[in-house]
Amino acid sequence: MNWEKIAQELTQPTDSKIVLLVMDGLGGLPVNGLTELEAAHKPNLDETARRGVCGVTDPVFMGITPGSGPAHLALFGYDPLKYQLGRGILEAMGTGVEVGRYDVVARGNFATLKEGLVVDRRAGRISTEENVRLCTFLNQKIQEIEGIKVSLYPGKEHRFVLKISGPGLSDALTDADPQKEGKPAVPAEALTPEAEFTAKIINRFLEELRQALQNEPKANYALLRGFSKFPSNLPPMSELYKIKPASIANYPMYRGLTRLLGMEVLEVGPSTEEIFETLEKHYSDYNFFYLHFKKTDSTGEDGRYEDKVKAIEEIDRFIPRLWALKPDVLVITSDHSTPSVLKSHSWHPNPFVLVSTNAAADEVSRFTERECAKGALGRFPSLYAMPLMLAHALKLKKYGA
Amino acid sequence: MNWEKIAQELTQPTDSKIVLLVMDGLGGLPVNGLTELEAAHKPNLDETARRGVCGVTDPVFMGITPGSGPAHLALFGYDPLKYQLGRGILEAMGTGVEVGRYDVVARGNFATLKEGLVVDRRAGRISTEENVRLCTFLNQKIQEIEGIKVSLYPGKEHRFVLKISGPGLSDALTDADPQKEGKPAVPAEALTPEAEFTAKIINRFLEELRQALQNEPKANYALLRGFSKFPSNLPPMSELYKIKPASIANYPMYRGLTRLLGMEVLEVGPSTEEIFETLEKHYSDYNFFYLHFKKTDSTGEDGRYEDKVKAIEEIDRFIPRLWALKPDVLVITSDHSTPSVLKSHSWHPNPFVLVSTNAAADEVSRFTERECAKGALGRFPSLYAMPLMLAHALKLKKYGA
Repeated sequence: MNWEKIAQELTQPTDSKIVLLVMDGLGGLPVNGLTELEAAHKPNLDETARRGVCGVTDPVFMGITPGSGPAHLALFGYDPLKYQLGRGILEAMGTGVEVGRYDVVARGNFATLKEGLVVDRRAGRISTEENVRLCTFLNQKIQEIEGIKVSLYPGKEHRFVLKISGPGLSDALTDADPQKEGKPAVPAEALTPEAEFTAKIINRFLEELRQALQNEPKANYALLRGFSKFPSNLPPMSELYKIKPASIANYPMYRGLTRLLGMEVLEVGPSTEEIFETLEKHYSDYNFFYLHFKKTDSTGEDGRYEDKVKAIEEIDRFIPRLWALKPDVLVITSDHSTPSVLKSHSWHPNPFVLVSTNAAADEVSRFTERECAKGALGRFPSLYAMPLMLAHALKLKKYGA
Repeated sequence: MNWEKIAQELTQPTDSKIVLLVMDGLGGLPVNGLTELEAAHKPNLDETARRGVCGVTDPVFMGITPGSGPAHLALFGYDPLKYQLGRGILEAMGTGVEVGRYDVVARGNFATLKEGLVVDRRAGRISTEENVRLCTFLNQKIQEIEGIKVSLYPGKEHRFVLKISGPGLSDALTDADPQKEGKPAVPAEALTPEAEFTAKIINRFLEELRQALQNEPKANYALLRGFSKFPSNLPPMSELYKIKPASIANYPMYRGLTRLLGMEVLEVGPSTEEIFETLEKHYSDYNFFYLHFKKTDSTGEDGRYEDKVKAIEEIDRFIPRLWALKPDVLVITSDHSTPSVLKSHSWHPNPFVLVSTNAAADEVSRFTERECAKGALGRFPSLYAMPLMLAHALKLKKYGA
């Protein structure tokens, strides 16, 4: 299906409001017979399931474990098989770097060069403090090259993000990384004629960096990988759906991704309560709200089953504040599963509930993986979440006559 | 999937018979907790659900509200995202105009022209009687232009359908309509070289019409929009599926559409009983029967919940006459939902039941939206209805070895 084309044709602006709460990595697997959701005491999430129509979703397709990027793209109606975010973009977003539509970003490693050979691709895993010092120094030393602004953003240990900003840049470049130790440093090479200017900037940057760091004992060079730009074919949500969307997320990755999709990224503190406070404060200013709750994923990733259960119980207490706003459409779901027993993202489908006066409640009365699978929405690709939300908010006109 | 190609390859002619009853706009939403289907006393539809295997279908995809055209195309196995019927074709079918494979049709408005400007795009909404008089007059006055037959068919108020018939016509034309009042009349323009002859015919027609109507006080001109032909890539059902299909529908739109698909359109009166009488009368002459029941849609469109319940109860009494014929495959479903509370088509999935000796009945024993959602067929695109019917009628050979 060409959903984007249909969306542009069929969506109509209305005052109706949609609230989408994403409990990151929510789905789990049983420990002693019960998944985290089944073990949690969560009367309000269960009551939401009772009031709504339920189902389970596959972010990419059955069996595929998605990263956060594709899983979120699908939820917002962007086919994750069609729109792929480059590694540089994802690294930048995770590091909290704002990426504009015309910037090029890359993942960087500080490295050790000896007699022209890369002898340590991680510069002996220098400390994060060292990294911050080096990035600050380089940002003062190399501010621009031929009118192109250059900025380094330190990550953890030896990792950083390089962003270059200016007109006419391309991401069609090979990695400036020999991939293996003991090999000579390699320049970035243009893959298309349009990328030759960018290759020149990158290689000039690497040369200036090498000179600036020549007296460093370990981190005297850098490797650059995953050059990427914002996908030029990714239309902003406001244009695509004629909505005014706001993002309430505390983590850089989700803030960055939703900013790329044209959502207004609201300021929000780290506590769970602040998610709901921010929603309430801005409720009259937007008509689509994305709320992101991270703790269900991070506890799952760490394998902390009990803490994941507690995270579910923690957010459950705030659910009545969503009801109180009476949104035309309320959806509570997840981007992907993160079972504590796997300590990682997984391919298991996500529980999904939609509450709307334009939906007939089904018989599901518990918000769990297994109960939602019996819901009237059935099992469906996450990509349909957006058409469903827009439809129930009466924001979609009829297709054909 | 390329179902048409697979169908042509795998279908085989057999004597087995398929009966498809489409209760238009059947799906609803609850009023006081019950949908129209849940409120209706319909023992025979429920018994059909008990005997069959159930599911729910999405006509286009989840969240999309279809018009009658795309919804029906999907049921007959034509992807509604691939085959789009032009506005002129749909208007013609709704007005009861027979459209051949080589005709071009357009929606017409009588309009008022003053000193070369379109001052009223609807000619003061002249009465339908006036419209009939004008069309009759023009049909006598302008019978053909350069060997191309020209016919006008009156609709309601100021609306009519223009049909031109002859070799070498194209529908690649711009609208002959300035779209706004106070602007000069515009000719139809060819969008491709092949359409230049058609543009010339249309513009000659408009000139002859203007001269013929010059003394009319209001309706002294016409605007033409949505030039369209039958989609040339739409293969007839008989070829595609090797069946002999008959259509039993009283409303022009459904008669027109099924004629376009190559079905034999049987004569049938307006009463519900006549649908079943016509089926019984012709049962030995065809092996695929499409039965159309309109009242569930029209009552839904009007927001008459009680009358929609009664319409369901009315047709329920005739269901045993379908059983008595012992078709190899009996399917009862809908093209799209039309909840009374929304007074319009909607995106909600359609209840679907298939009865066949080659199907294992599931546990569903009530023919309602929510019970069918629990059926063994699950939730699936309407596009699979046709492969399912053909398969259960043993009309589909094995795919691959």
